Amino acid sequence: MKKQIALLPGDGIGQEVMQSATEVLNAIAVEFDHEFEFDTYDIGGAAIETQETPLPDKTIEGCKRSDAILLGAVGGPKWENLPSHLRPEKGLLGIRKALGLFANLRPVKGFSQLLHASPLKEEVINGSDLLIVRELTGGLYFGEPSEIREDGQSVVDTLAYKREEIERIVDQAFQSARLRRKHLTSIDKANVLASSKLWREVVEEKRREYPDVAVEHLLVDAAAMKLITNPGQFDVMVTENMFGDILSDEASVLTGSLGMLPSASLRADGMGLYEPVHGSAPDIAGKGVANPLAMILSTALMLRHSFQLEEEANAVEEAVQELLRSGYHTADLNVKEGEQVGTNVMTRLVVEGI
Amino acid sequence: MKKQIALLPGDGIGQEVMQSATEVLNAIAVEFDHEFEFDTYDIGGAAIETQETPLPDKTIEGCKRSDAILLGAVGGPKWENLPSHLRPEKGLLGIRKALGLFANLRPVKGFSQLLHASPLKEEVINGSDLLIVRELTGGLYFGEPSEIREDGQSVVDTLAYKREEIERIVDQAFQSARLRRKHLTSIDKANVLASSKLWREVVEEKRREYPDVAVEHLLVDAAAMKLITNPGQFDVMVTENMFGDILSDEASVLTGSLGMLPSASLRADGMGLYEPVHGSAPDIAGKGVANPLAMILSTALMLRHSFQLEEEANAVEEAVQELLRSGYHTADLNVKEGEQVGTNVMTRLVVEGI
Ligand SMILES: CC(C)[C@H](C(=O)O)[C@@H](O)C(=O)O
Ligand SMILES: CC(C)[C@H](C(=O)O)[C@@H](O)C(=O)O
Repeated sequence: MKKQIALLPGDGIGQEVMQSATEVLNAIAVEFDHEFEFDTYDIGGAAIETQETPLPDKTIEGCKRSDAILLGAVGGPKWENLPSHLRPEKGLLGIRKALGLFANLRPVKGFSQLLHASPLKEEVINGSDLLIVRELTGGLYFGEPSEIREDGQSVVDTLAYKREEIERIVDQAFQSARLRRKHLTSIDKANVLASSKLWREVVEEKRREYPDVAVEHLLVDAAAMKLITNPGQFDVMVTENMFGDILSDEASVLTGSLGMLPSASLRADGMGLYEPVHGSAPDIAGKGVANPLAMILSTALMLRHSFQLEEEANAVEEAVQELLRSGYHTADLNVKEGEQVGTNVMTRLVVEGI
Repeated sequence: MKKQIALLPGDGIGQEVMQSATEVLNAIAVEFDHEFEFDTYDIGGAAIETQETPLPDKTIEGCKRSDAILLGAVGGPKWENLPSHLRPEKGLLGIRKALGLFANLRPVKGFSQLLHASPLKEEVINGSDLLIVRELTGGLYFGEPSEIREDGQSVVDTLAYKREEIERIVDQAFQSARLRRKHLTSIDKANVLASSKLWREVVEEKRREYPDVAVEHLLVDAAAMKLITNPGQFDVMVTENMFGDILSDEASVLTGSLGMLPSASLRADGMGLYEPVHGSAPDIAGKGVANPLAMILSTALMLRHSFQLEEEANAVEEAVQELLRSGYHTADLNVKEGEQVGTNVMTRLVVEGI
């Protein structure tokens, strides 16, 4: 199989972990006889430096020509005080919208070797394995009007959805649930928001097409509680953009190893952008100590979701499992036993595992 | 001091715990020589049953004539499938808006006897003591338009704020911070929302009036993470209505004893509505086992915030502390040692403590 992959390393440790991703993909290409071609484009602070915009047209066009996109991380103190249209995050929002990547998938599953670092008690976090499916190109993030008015005397943002935008993300969530434990929790605020009422209506309609999936509705405030008190009760959770932003970040700290979490942002045709959940970590950038595993696990999601290469995805994930079992870890993982290694060695271990 | 207090027991265990509140207030009246007059009004499901609306005009008027309001809880399975304008929660939203109760105060502080029930590890939750100040009458909850359009093909909700609405809640938060550890964390989503930009601007302006208070800005997604990984870093958190709804419920489970948490919803003139954070718990209603302590601690907040009776508020809070130290607890509290008691005995213990 021959695939074109756009690389958007971005800022901070994004550069380093992207290097790890390509090494791992090269190993997969050799082992399974594929051809992966990489083109690198600027985004975020890196793009601001060279092209005075966080998302150059060239980047958008390059991404559009590719079969999938890998993103490192964007942002850093250097660009924090720029006017908002020039901030690195705008690059991220812009690429999601420009490519129509409406479905953000955030799996949260602990690794038994790392669970001791969880802020939760072992009996609370043990065995939990959930997937948050977040709508990514609608709602408060993109609704108009969104503006300060009357010379600063009032302000308005708009939470808008088209029915079809809700339908496609709900479909995506049902399909994800089918590949897992067939349980879907739809999160809304139907006791307050009109958008949540339509959301609930669509979920009720769609469930008839997926009779094998059990469906529950949960209010967003209750979901924020239950993620902490009983994360194991969830399989797939689906929700709108802003609720998803909050809940998926909340969920990301439950297992105690944020540095291990990948994410996928997909379109219905399989095109996707894959990135680690962690940020650009400017404090450790360039030191060779960054944990590349979330980026590497993001490539596994790419192999699976954009290229349907399930076996190859498993090979990457198993290599990671195996090195954790052998006691290897990076500094961020809070492991006391075994051997602490840097970005390069960690990457080599994955490559050897493949 | 003579005060008129409106009682809105509402549904489920609301009735029982309200009884406890009045007994405790009667004890305070005797001990400290005050006069508290109680008038009871319907709200929620109880009002739907008798008056076909969750918030009768008579209730609003009664509350307006009072010096403070105590609310039990609203809601239950019986009313869950009614059209939304008839749902018990509408009573709650309506009374907040009708009385202009714009500042919701949610203190979260563990009791050392109960912390073992926390889902968090002891070293994570230990020593945390925070207050969430949530804007309660603006934002997505009340913005117009909020409607399903084009025969179900699209939907819109509106997140609107006037500058003065932001100013008054931010003032409230600074004032609360002054009475505590003088640290304020303002939560927003300024990298996406126009409303958050104005919010941040107002906080930056107001901080000049409170130079003794340290101020930090935090994005709502990061706040959802840090509440779990390091709740002890927070003193006062201030945020808009919907973010506050989610974060304050998230925070409410951190200590493991939701049944102990009071809340206050205030107006600038000191008028306030006080209610437990827990719900109407229809499953245990009428059995005499409900934990009345969150309701009782809500009366302490009333004594303090609406009546400036600090000594009396402390007397209530100390009586609760004392009975916990003596090992008394209700069934919900997950305590193994000591004596388990019901609503009546628990109430009597507080009264005796006063
Ligand atoms: C950087 C920011 C705009 C972005 C978001 O809110 O979507 C981030 O928090 C995320 O979740 O990917
Ligand atoms: C019942 C509901 C409308 C309400 C809210 O969202 O404000 C509740 O969750 C609360 O926090 O008091």
